Amino acid sequence: MKEVPFDRKVIHAMIQEMGLDMALGSIREMNQLVNDVVKRFDTEFIRMEFGVPGLKAGRIAAEAEAKMLIEDEVANTYPPFQGTPELKSAGSEFCKAFMDMDIPPECVIPTVGSMQGCFIALGLAGFHNPEKSTILFLDPGFPVNKKQVDFYGLNSISLELKDCRGDDLKNEVDRLCREHPIAGCMWSSPNNPAWIILSEDELEGLAEVFDKHGVFAIEDMAYFGMDFRQDYSKPYEPPYQPTIARYMERVFITLSSSKLFSYAGQRCGLALIPPKFASQKFPALQSRFTKPDILGAFVHGGIYPTTSGVPQGPQRGLATLLKATVDGSYSPWESVRTYQHRAAFMKKTFLENGFSLVYDRDRDKPLADGFYFTISYPGMNSGQLAEEMIYYGISAITLDVTGSTQQGLRACVSLFREDQFEILAYRLKRFHEDHQ
Amino acid sequence: MKEVPFDRKVIHAMIQEMGLDMALGSIREMNQLVNDVVKRFDTEFIRMEFGVPGLKAGRIAAEAEAKMLIEDEVANTYPPFQGTPELKSAGSEFCKAFMDMDIPPECVIPTVGSMQGCFIALGLAGFHNPEKSTILFLDPGFPVNKKQVDFYGLNSISLELKDCRGDDLKNEVDRLCREHPIAGCMWSSPNNPAWIILSEDELEGLAEVFDKHGVFAIEDMAYFGMDFRQDYSKPYEPPYQPTIARYMERVFITLSSSKLFSYAGQRCGLALIPPKFASQKFPALQSRFTKPDILGAFVHGGIYPTTSGVPQGPQRGLATLLKATVDGSYSPWESVRTYQHRAAFMKKTFLENGFSLVYDRDRDKPLADGFYFTISYPGMNSGQLAEEMIYYGISAITLDVTGSTQQGLRACVSLFREDQFEILAYRLKRFHEDHQ
Repeated sequence: MKEVPFDRKVIHAMIQEMGLDMALGSIREMNQLVNDVVKRFDTEFIRMEFGVPGLKAGRIAAEAEAKMLIEDEVANTYPPFQGTPELKSAGSEFCKAFMDMDIPPECVIPTVGSMQGCFIALGLAGFHNPEKSTILFLDPGFPVNKKQVDFYGLNSISLELKDCRGDDLKNEVDRLCREHPIAGCMWSSPNNPAWIILSEDELEGLAEVFDKHGVFAIEDMAYFGMDFRQDYSKPYEPPYQPTIARYMERVFITLSSSKLFSYAGQRCGLALIPPKFASQKFPALQSRFTKPDILGAFVHGGIYPTTSGVPQGPQRGLATLLKATVDGSYSPWESVRTYQHRAAFMKKTFLENGFSLVYDRDRDKPLADGFYFTISYPGMNSGQLAEEMIYYGISAITLDVTGSTQQGLRACVSLFREDQFEILAYRLKRFHEDHQ
Repeated sequence: MKEVPFDRKVIHAMIQEMGLDMALGSIREMNQLVNDVVKRFDTEFIRMEFGVPGLKAGRIAAEAEAKMLIEDEVANTYPPFQGTPELKSAGSEFCKAFMDMDIPPECVIPTVGSMQGCFIALGLAGFHNPEKSTILFLDPGFPVNKKQVDFYGLNSISLELKDCRGDDLKNEVDRLCREHPIAGCMWSSPNNPAWIILSEDELEGLAEVFDKHGVFAIEDMAYFGMDFRQDYSKPYEPPYQPTIARYMERVFITLSSSKLFSYAGQRCGLALIPPKFASQKFPALQSRFTKPDILGAFVHGGIYPTTSGVPQGPQRGLATLLKATVDGSYSPWESVRTYQHRAAFMKKTFLENGFSLVYDRDRDKPLADGFYFTISYPGMNSGQLAEEMIYYGISAITLDVTGSTQQGLRACVSLFREDQFEILAYRLKRFHEDHQ
């Protein structure tokens, strides 16, 4: 096991040379730095900067895609803009089985990753009413969603969730909607990176406020069913994945196959649109998105001019995963619970060595163990902590880049391996000895 | 063989019921009508409305994708935003072999169909200079590119190519650039649907004008190498596919795998950016596209927030096709020359029955036979002709929807089958007898 800390002067010089601001370093920049340090010191790292799947994808999906490409010879056929009938139906049934929601197949739109779904949903929200062009983010969150808002030339404002939950959350959103021209509001639940999860009463309260102010909701379900305090894995049986769509109509839900199914490489997600909302017309949409109705604008004004549909193979792959999850022959939760166990061990080890959780409670409940958690160390701001941790062979991005108002780091558990338990414990022990 | 015309009254009522304006019917609407007519009269149609591949995709691509998905288990790994090293290198070598252009791998960007490449290129052109927000289209063209401009809220103007070629073209573009705030100019060559092809002296002239006025060029090579008057099929040997990038730097070239490789279903194209242009900085880009340099803005501000990269499988598929074409083990041109033969027969049959070609010459040369041609019939405008043809079992979209100023139809040869030669000849003969 390599001794830590590594040579501070050398690493600090490397950071200087890259021109890297450690408080604001992106995932990609942090990754570059870590690769260089790993090479320079011939060591391994505890890598927590990437929010990528650390598990293998279900083999049934790859096999189904391969079979289709070889046997059905569909590679020469443009996919329908609105998605393949197979995936639309599978998505609809998945919603029924695991959310208890009725979203008909025509309102289930395959997207090139949930990234494309968020991108189009933000555009429709931001331009549906000429008098409102601001997107409200419940933060912290996924930094790229803010880039999407920038892409459109729209405005955004941020509400920090840390000390604003329950009725406070509802009241604060209401105040912001009165004071700003808010067209849409976006969040993910479970939250990246705080892993706090909005509860049913909060979703109900938000829905009431959004409807009152005519605000579209964009509910990013990147981590669908990954609140491991609940067992969401049984089809057609409660408990069901919470969703604001139970309380309001004007919602886009984006589903990702990247985390729950570890299918990130094939870039296939789904956008779900409640049917009443899908047929609602907003004349302001027509000029940019070709059609005034939400569904038409999403498909013909959103999917078509950006990618002309989703590749055939990945649609088959995701359809296969959804169908097998619904019929019970495959359980993605069996795999992803690995993240829960890793998070529990890692958090315990950090807490034993002087660290605190930045987002430490989920209202009145302990925080769930999941894909991310957040850490701070006394007397250090985000940038200092990120740099000090590099000296000890541990990498993470700062909370600053997630839109959080807090000082600290986002830790992703996905790439942590069980054979690194000992290294993590040793490095954190050394870190703490050197800093207390 | 079914007698034609079918019952005019019935068909006319169907059109009325759909609320379809035959002069402006989209491909999708025309397709819907034809499906209904086919069912109502239990007949087959000569379908010329779709610009989709009518050939099978190369099996090597499907096999390579299938092998990678099963053996390499990459489905859980996010593709790099800038594309896989394999496809970037294969694209670079393809450019060298068939265009004699040096585009290094880092300047070859995989996209989700060339649709995504055009979409991002139009955005970068339209926002690179705050004083210019108009896109000039050399028309007729692909209607969706105009929807892309609408998506951004940019403006567009159109220049009709029919009687504007050679020095006239250069002078007219120069005039438009003086009179309008033109930020970028887009066209495809071969042209959809006129199948006219800009010659080297025209490209050189346009480059001079664009450079003079600081206009970005967007050269859509959807029909790469499909000017069948030339043999572009020999790697590293002239003649080479013409490109404006031989004469100027500020060019985006978009390459499609849909037509040359019949790989439309997997949605994988390439954007090519000359290296000097790739590193050029335009500060106005930063706010929407994150980076001021063209390459950074394209990848981190364009690809990342829209789809977070291109699926892994399709990148392998296209890389396989490009490599095999470069090493000579596969020739896409052997297949696509089928379109040439179909076009020659179909055009002859139309001309023998009173039709004319709308775009009938390519400057001083006869028009090439390719994927599309354009037709008119004396005394009928676009909408009338489109409807009359339906009565005789032949479907096509009007030139009106392609941005053309001419009256007539776009005919796509791709779905025509050799066993339909006789039906086409009979139906056109009846059409002509009834209308002369």
